[in-house]
Amino acid sequence: MKTEIIYGMHPVYEAMSARRRQVFAIYLVKEKKSGRLARIESLADSSRVLQHVVGLEELNALVGTAEHQGVAARVSPYPLTEFSDLLQTVQAGDGKFFLLMLDNIVDPQNLGAVIRTALCVGVDGVILPKDRCASPTPAVSKASAGALEHIRLTRVTNMVQTMQHCKRAGIWIIGLQREATLSIYSGDLTGSIAIVLGGEQKGIRPLVQRNCDFIFSIPQRGPVDSLNASAAAAVAMYEAFRQRQKG
Amino acid sequence: MKTEIIYGMHPVYEAMSARRRQVFAIYLVKEKKSGRLARIESLADSSRVLQHVVGLEELNALVGTAEHQGVAARVSPYPLTEFSDLLQTVQAGDGKFFLLMLDNIVDPQNLGAVIRTALCVGVDGVILPKDRCASPTPAVSKASAGALEHIRLTRVTNMVQTMQHCKRAGIWIIGLQREATLSIYSGDLTGSIAIVLGGEQKGIRPLVQRNCDFIFSIPQRGPVDSLNASAAAAVAMYEAFRQRQKG
Repeated sequence: MKTEIIYGMHPVYEAMSARRRQVFAIYLVKEKKSGRLARIESLADSSRVLQHVVGLEELNALVGTAEHQGVAARVSPYPLTEFSDLLQTVQAGDGKFFLLMLDNIVDPQNLGAVIRTALCVGVDGVILPKDRCASPTPAVSKASAGALEHIRLTRVTNMVQTMQHCKRAGIWIIGLQREATLSIYSGDLTGSIAIVLGGEQKGIRPLVQRNCDFIFSIPQRGPVDSLNASAAAAVAMYEAFRQRQKG
Repeated sequence: MKTEIIYGMHPVYEAMSARRRQVFAIYLVKEKKSGRLARIESLADSSRVLQHVVGLEELNALVGTAEHQGVAARVSPYPLTEFSDLLQTVQAGDGKFFLLMLDNIVDPQNLGAVIRTALCVGVDGVILPKDRCASPTPAVSKASAGALEHIRLTRVTNMVQTMQHCKRAGIWIIGLQREATLSIYSGDLTGSIAIVLGGEQKGIRPLVQRNCDFIFSIPQRGPVDSLNASAAAAVAMYEAFRQRQKG
């Protein structure tokens, strides 16, 4: 079976806590005592996960980076959600979709940050194209502070087709673009929605843009170019969250 | 005279464009043609700034990192604003303060990201304590995409004293804390305000907290710990911006 190595306090803890991946073993460098490490060990104990104490160099070699905070785990591959399952889960819930579609987000740091915020606002699912987008790697799990281990994430081959599926399911597709004349604050975000976010450099692809029902901007002042992608994502998702809380 | 080296496309361009620092010379690696580099050269031409073409290794050595995107500049030190000048500038404007106070933000990346968003929402000034906080270094200018070159930034020795000054000037001090029971969306952020943000690890210091007029949280769902500091900052500043736009 294919396995992968996730690393860092949050990813390892959240992978065990989410119980979506099989956790075959965890690897710990026990040089300094840390409360967060103890929390991981105790969860590993109660989940009967194998624990190996290793040296720092050994862990560096296993992980392939030194960014592991002294902990890593061998786990089964990332548990992707099928698009059709995603739609069914939401329909079985309150029936109001809150989806996030990402286009052209190539930087794992940005993808991780966006997923972390998406989990905070209770997004039902994140949709990524298989091309032109970072994929849900261990680096993304790290950048998301382990939020990736909990979020429902779907990868699709054809983004435009997926948008059309969403529309047929009664979901409004809302694109964000800095040149748009309508502000996100003028939009009604309380229904079934999918917010479409582009990457820092290129934004949303034109074809994807043309398939949005609405295009909104995040208002900005000042002389410098623009918000970074993850700040823009946070502002848009929280505006939807705010409107949906009120209702 | 003391000088420093700023680096990266945005910081170098914005430093010349903001005209707050003296720019003594720029250094360019001309290996690949780039539109953004041409924009910098043309601004340097019109501002009569000395231009040196250098090798990649030479620029790496000058800057001390390879994160320079082929461009750097020797400039005068960062132009801090005095707190009293900050208050006067705002009083001469519309009289409504929108300030940002940062406590315990030690990571230059986070500080840069927060400053970038602050400039986008038209914050009048950013206040940093001299201790326990990252300072406005070239790395912060880079992380802010050059926004640091435009924002008004004050460093203070005694944060609590500064908060009391603000109160006497009629400014409401609004702290953010994840445990607070009142949501930021329940607050009136349309008057003269200073938003106080803490760092990712420690949040706001207790003494600073006790000197806030209000403490709000950013509502969150889901199993994972919390928003990252710069996403929380973006959400809070944009909620203030939204409320202030409406008025």
